[in-house]
Amino acid sequence: MACDLCETAGGTLLWQDESLRVVYVDEPGYTGYCRVIWRAHVQEMTDLNDAERAHCMRIVFAVESVLRAQFTPDKINLASLGNYTPHVHWHVIPRFRDDPHFPDAIWATRRRNPSQATTQDLPQRIAAALTEKLAHPR
Amino acid sequence: MACDLCETAGGTLLWQDESLRVVYVDEPGYTGYCRVIWRAHVQEMTDLNDAERAHCMRIVFAVESVLRAQFTPDKINLASLGNYTPHVHWHVIPRFRDDPHFPDAIWATRRRNPSQATTQDLPQRIAAALTEKLAHPR
Repeated sequence: MACDLCETAGGTLLWQDESLRVVYVDEPGYTGYCRVIWRAHVQEMTDLNDAERAHCMRIVFAVESVLRAQFTPDKINLASLGNYTPHVHWHVIPRFRDDPHFPDAIWATRRRNPSQATTQDLPQRIAAALTEKLAHPR
Repeated sequence: MACDLCETAGGTLLWQDESLRVVYVDEPGYTGYCRVIWRAHVQEMTDLNDAERAHCMRIVFAVESVLRAQFTPDKINLASLGNYTPHVHWHVIPRFRDDPHFPDAIWATRRRNPSQATTQDLPQRIAAALTEKLAHPR
């Protein structure tokens, strides 16, 4: 079965270990949008064992911490949907009052056009902060 | 500040402890839709400490397990958004190929009308299964 997340990175690689990777999603109007993608083709979080699930969530929340520190968003959105691509992946999305869909979910109808271009070095900045965070988890 | 999730249950109560509650959401076309709502008014998951966060996710995944066992959905959707109500709460949504928005997120434009009414005793069934699951976590 063809699976986009088995066959492609799904974004710009920021960090990875043997279980998962963190990628940057270049979505207009969404500064700092990252995904945490489980390496193996597994459909649901409850298909992972307890340790795998805990590891996955530890990385999701590390990404959330880094994005909050870097961008001070109005809200963080976390989602594991996978209706199109049933391979465990988390969206970690900094939300801002002037982003294209706020206060709706990013999957709703767009309310306004993106107001700013993505800064070129953002993936590198996030990767550095995440590497630091995961090297020193406290 | 007025907060819907501080002032109302946010659904039919299924299970609760001192930290959080699980409620049933009566949304047409969405059989089994539950929310896990943190009791205290906290905005982001990373505002909780490690133990609180682990507890919250343990309950989210217990709800996912129960919903999969009860309804065999085509996919589970998990989301913590809170753009309208910035008080930590998780949506745990069994998704089916014939539900109103599949394969889009439930916050997207509806593709079809709800095909079935909610069965009256569903909240009771889920509450019983969840209570059993959390009494015997393995």
